[in-house]
Amino acid sequence: MHPPAGSDPRPRAPGDWDVDAFRAAGHELIDWAARYFEGIEGRPVLARVRPGEIRRSLPATPPEQPEAWKELLADLEQRIEPGVTHWNHPGFMAYFGITGSAPGILGELASAVFNTNGMLWRTNPASTELEQVVLGWLLEMCDLPRDWFGQIVDLGSTSAVLALAAAREACPLLEAREDGLSLHGTPRLRLYTSVEAHSSVEKAAILLGLGRAGVRKIEVDDRFRMRPEALATAIEEDREEGWTPFAVCATIGTTSTTSVDPVDALAAICRREKLWLHVDAAYAGNAAVAPEFRHHFRGCSEADSYYFNPHKWLFVPIDCSVFFTRHPDTLRRAFQLIPDYLKTSETDAINFMDYGFQLGRRFRSIKLWWVIRAFGVDGIRERIRHACTLAQAFAARVDAEPRLERMAPAEFSVVCFRAVWPDLGPDETDAANEELLERINRSGEVFLSPTRVRGAFTLRLAIGNLRTDQRHVDRVWELLQAGIDG
Amino acid sequence: MHPPAGSDPRPRAPGDWDVDAFRAAGHELIDWAARYFEGIEGRPVLARVRPGEIRRSLPATPPEQPEAWKELLADLEQRIEPGVTHWNHPGFMAYFGITGSAPGILGELASAVFNTNGMLWRTNPASTELEQVVLGWLLEMCDLPRDWFGQIVDLGSTSAVLALAAAREACPLLEAREDGLSLHGTPRLRLYTSVEAHSSVEKAAILLGLGRAGVRKIEVDDRFRMRPEALATAIEEDREEGWTPFAVCATIGTTSTTSVDPVDALAAICRREKLWLHVDAAYAGNAAVAPEFRHHFRGCSEADSYYFNPHKWLFVPIDCSVFFTRHPDTLRRAFQLIPDYLKTSETDAINFMDYGFQLGRRFRSIKLWWVIRAFGVDGIRERIRHACTLAQAFAARVDAEPRLERMAPAEFSVVCFRAVWPDLGPDETDAANEELLERINRSGEVFLSPTRVRGAFTLRLAIGNLRTDQRHVDRVWELLQAGIDG
Repeated sequence: MHPPAGSDPRPRAPGDWDVDAFRAAGHELIDWAARYFEGIEGRPVLARVRPGEIRRSLPATPPEQPEAWKELLADLEQRIEPGVTHWNHPGFMAYFGITGSAPGILGELASAVFNTNGMLWRTNPASTELEQVVLGWLLEMCDLPRDWFGQIVDLGSTSAVLALAAAREACPLLEAREDGLSLHGTPRLRLYTSVEAHSSVEKAAILLGLGRAGVRKIEVDDRFRMRPEALATAIEEDREEGWTPFAVCATIGTTSTTSVDPVDALAAICRREKLWLHVDAAYAGNAAVAPEFRHHFRGCSEADSYYFNPHKWLFVPIDCSVFFTRHPDTLRRAFQLIPDYLKTSETDAINFMDYGFQLGRRFRSIKLWWVIRAFGVDGIRERIRHACTLAQAFAARVDAEPRLERMAPAEFSVVCFRAVWPDLGPDETDAANEELLERINRSGEVFLSPTRVRGAFTLRLAIGNLRTDQRHVDRVWELLQAGIDG
Repeated sequence: MHPPAGSDPRPRAPGDWDVDAFRAAGHELIDWAARYFEGIEGRPVLARVRPGEIRRSLPATPPEQPEAWKELLADLEQRIEPGVTHWNHPGFMAYFGITGSAPGILGELASAVFNTNGMLWRTNPASTELEQVVLGWLLEMCDLPRDWFGQIVDLGSTSAVLALAAAREACPLLEAREDGLSLHGTPRLRLYTSVEAHSSVEKAAILLGLGRAGVRKIEVDDRFRMRPEALATAIEEDREEGWTPFAVCATIGTTSTTSVDPVDALAAICRREKLWLHVDAAYAGNAAVAPEFRHHFRGCSEADSYYFNPHKWLFVPIDCSVFFTRHPDTLRRAFQLIPDYLKTSETDAINFMDYGFQLGRRFRSIKLWWVIRAFGVDGIRERIRHACTLAQAFAARVDAEPRLERMAPAEFSVVCFRAVWPDLGPDETDAANEELLERINRSGEVFLSPTRVRGAFTLRLAIGNLRTDQRHVDRVWELLQAGIDG
């Protein structure tokens, strides 16, 4: 199958490589990937390079003549790999641990081979329809309303933008699509989200012309959940002051502490006040596959829009965010523009380009389809449970250790904690924890990231990589103990 | 290297497939891809399925238990492939012909294997720095100002949004980031683009809260180029009527006819009027690699922002759009928000998340790096020339054939034309050309897409796939002759 060593698959102008050269190089790259995964634990998680080091190691100008495949592959291994922070490492427990599982990676490869733009049904019927099928599967798996309209987009940031753009379009007091927001007499729109919400909500508001002033952040309770009564009061105050409330963005599984807003109570307020309810379940939405987590999602079936990111915790490679809404017509009203060069004759098919601001559409459904089939829904459930079990056990250890303090409830697979030293004041405790985190990360064996909880510097252990097992969490524990002992 | 036939790489909960199973499945998928490419000309270009057909062929609910890899692969070949419109087919000459070349596909695979999110420098230093290096290469290859700041984003739609968001932020009469657009006294912003501009410009304006009213479309000359004097007049009129002009979006290579706006003349107006000049070179920007096309780009070095899509005509798989600006500080001022959970200690490194609304960032630079190196700049130049040569020869044939009419200049690799019948009036000619196009596309051998030029239904031949050669263009010609003869 493999070509003889030393074969040189240089391209012949003007075509692509011939198929034999592709096949040979492809096999070599698969073997590289296998070697990479086999050796993953031998690498430092966090790249040990200084800013500029990789850049300076690469030529500043491009080659005029073709280079051989073996040079490309060698440079990947020798120049790029050492500069990569290894999200695949089982010790990666920073931000949200993620996995591009084997079937997900292969699905991504299949997409790249087809290399279609599914902007219109006719430009790839299989992409459009497989996307619809797989999104139906996700609704079923997560016990969400089966009649929601869904689409796959790149990122949570994009899902947030689509949600708020639809909410803005739905607002009866303006014609956002036609007039924009600066027409004289346009109401000042305001949306509500908690102080713990993700920065993408605020960025979406900036993008949409609401400005940061258009976002009012509602305080949270002792478990970092948006307080419904504070929301109700804020809406009332704002109406009195001339604002036009139009949307509430609730979060299930906030980024900092994975707290869960009380969506059912917020939904009641939205119903009463006629506001669009958007639910950001970027990370935790994946956990709805397991029934024992579904109580966190009470009220979500009333959402006007909802999203989560399978690239976060459903084992598909980045990027893959799934956006749902019960109001596809609103989204289409906001964005449908069909220039002459994109007109088609089909009248009974969905053209996904009509439902957003992005025209291009990769064939992302294959990787999602393959991951669900390769693991089975039960297998996905087990994997999510496993991550949560590891995290819960770590949280219990933290709770039992007097030198550590837990900073937030661990609802899913993230634990927020810090060390305490009897002699240190608040600022010194922050500094000492920052140093502790740096020391743990310098080990190269694990990588945790920080946050702040009630202003205090906090360490975050986030389990989500499929390779992470008890021994990796144990290693965090050992490094933590050693770090505190100094 | 391959495992024995019949081995079953089912996953063991809770991990991923083991590496041997990944390797075996990977080799099989590469072999599938090679077979797919070898057989590409035997398939119909445009999928021969009816809406709903693929969807109904797939299970409506997901499997509870794992399925074997061989089932996944078999379904890809048997259920999905027949529903794909084959952008890889050399007869694909619709929209813009594109190619996911072999080195590009392999680069995409390498990215999926690393599966990193390069939002911060530290979350993947190699991704951040390779992106900077390769964007520097592109500036060099296209003879654009070497000091422009660049980033890779997903799509042209996103590049348009970033450009106009930066332009809005740069407008001295408002504080878009903080106040949004609906504050009492906010000026009504207006941007200018030609009637031939891409729909993504208008969609970006809707997204940004300018509304469609915030876009004034300027008429074009007989070669479909924005008329500078019409622009100047429009700006003057608008200022008198209370609008605040803030940006001009010029296009090099419009989607319908690949016309080229006179950027140098437009740049002079922007300088005088203090407007942001954005250049959309989505398709044609790739042609700047060849010096003989550079005259189309006169004035571009004065642009405030500029983008093109290597996934269109630089042989990398979708998605890959490169966005450049001379004002990175403006972009950062618009979008930088650093929550506690994303704070890092590096002060001398770029965190790309600060320069847009999208937090996540795939490792897209590998595919671009590998394509440039595998083909060499000279090889890329030759491939772009080859596409243009094929198109020019076709255009000459159209010009010499009295039964055909050329509808626009062919500046690059796209030819707009239609058939004429002596007895038919305008509406009948449109209908007959629509039927002609359908008949050509039904052959399954080629796929062309329509547009309208000065209101007339027009056929568009767009060459960009690396496999397209003289014989495929000849086949279009034969089908065209046969179709006209009826």
